Amino acid sequence: MKELQAYIRREGVVLSEHVLKVNSFLNHQVNPSLVMSIGENFAARFRGEDITKVMTVEASGIHFAFATALSMGVPFIYAKKTKAITQDNGVYTASTYSFTRQQTYQITVSKDFLSSADRVLIIDDILAEGASVKGLREIIDAAGAKLMGVGVVIEKSFQSGRKSLDEAGIPVHALARIAAMSPDEGITFLED
Amino acid sequence: MKELQAYIRREGVVLSEHVLKVNSFLNHQVNPSLVMSIGENFAARFRGEDITKVMTVEASGIHFAFATALSMGVPFIYAKKTKAITQDNGVYTASTYSFTRQQTYQITVSKDFLSSADRVLIIDDILAEGASVKGLREIIDAAGAKLMGVGVVIEKSFQSGRKSLDEAGIPVHALARIAAMSPDEGITFLED
Repeated sequence: MKELQAYIRREGVVLSEHVLKVNSFLNHQVNPSLVMSIGENFAARFRGEDITKVMTVEASGIHFAFATALSMGVPFIYAKKTKAITQDNGVYTASTYSFTRQQTYQITVSKDFLSSADRVLIIDDILAEGASVKGLREIIDAAGAKLMGVGVVIEKSFQSGRKSLDEAGIPVHALARIAAMSPDEGITFLED
Repeated sequence: MKELQAYIRREGVVLSEHVLKVNSFLNHQVNPSLVMSIGENFAARFRGEDITKVMTVEASGIHFAFATALSMGVPFIYAKKTKAITQDNGVYTASTYSFTRQQTYQITVSKDFLSSADRVLIIDDILAEGASVKGLREIIDAAGAKLMGVGVVIEKSFQSGRKSLDEAGIPVHALARIAAMSPDEGITFLED
């Protein structure tokens, strides 16, 4: 998505070879019309798949999941992050590791909102090692639902998340694929 | 907002005189077209105020802030919740108490995104004791920005949040005002 790549070049800050700051327009201050275009792009890519639910993890995936779900005319679910290790019979749970925060979270989704009849599209802001997507996949599997694809706004293609999904045969649509980045050299995009 | 009140009557679950569960359509599974109507309603109410930024707190305010900001054509900011007591010169911080989680959080907003030129509209999902709004007001004050109003999806009018805002002379627009509720008697709405 050219508009997004232009934004990232103009407003993104490369802090290291692994850390890209996009908090002026994507995940702290947010440009809503850009996010709406992102959602429409995901919706167009997966419109043929009879998606019944969009899923993401709180908090930074919520506005992208909302924009996508609005465009597709289906509900979305955001998994809740909890640090407490509570067992509740009414929820599906999975563990996910945050590299940014160096912390393991449990994510939970109420059993009321996901069933074997669902065809799910996962939406997330950043795909790096793929920890959030892995947690959501466990929940989708536990519900007997079908994962139809994954849409990510920014993919750090040099980390392992994309490769794992490709190997599992899951369709991935990434709007900005970063082949490499550094504070000195800037960002090199792959074309998707 | 009649459509919202009808949803709350149909799908809301009154767990006690203080706790209303709306997680099938507002804050876990989300109905995107309803949320978009909510955002358009807030935008219409505050359109004359030359709002420059919409603000909320992660996570459950994000989709409402996004829908409102999209309708108004301005950016939104979501304050981050952290439990760590970090001092960072680059952020405004405030403490806020979550009654649901019985826990004090720090909320933070980068100084890059809020200035004395800003005219701010706060959007949140639920107004009860007003703890989140209080934290956001501290941040807006610290930035020298101007708070133009507060939009909340559900107000529990029998708790103190609305009264505090009325006393401070801050315009509040609540889409569903709950005068009283109980598992046996159901919900009584005030008209706004």
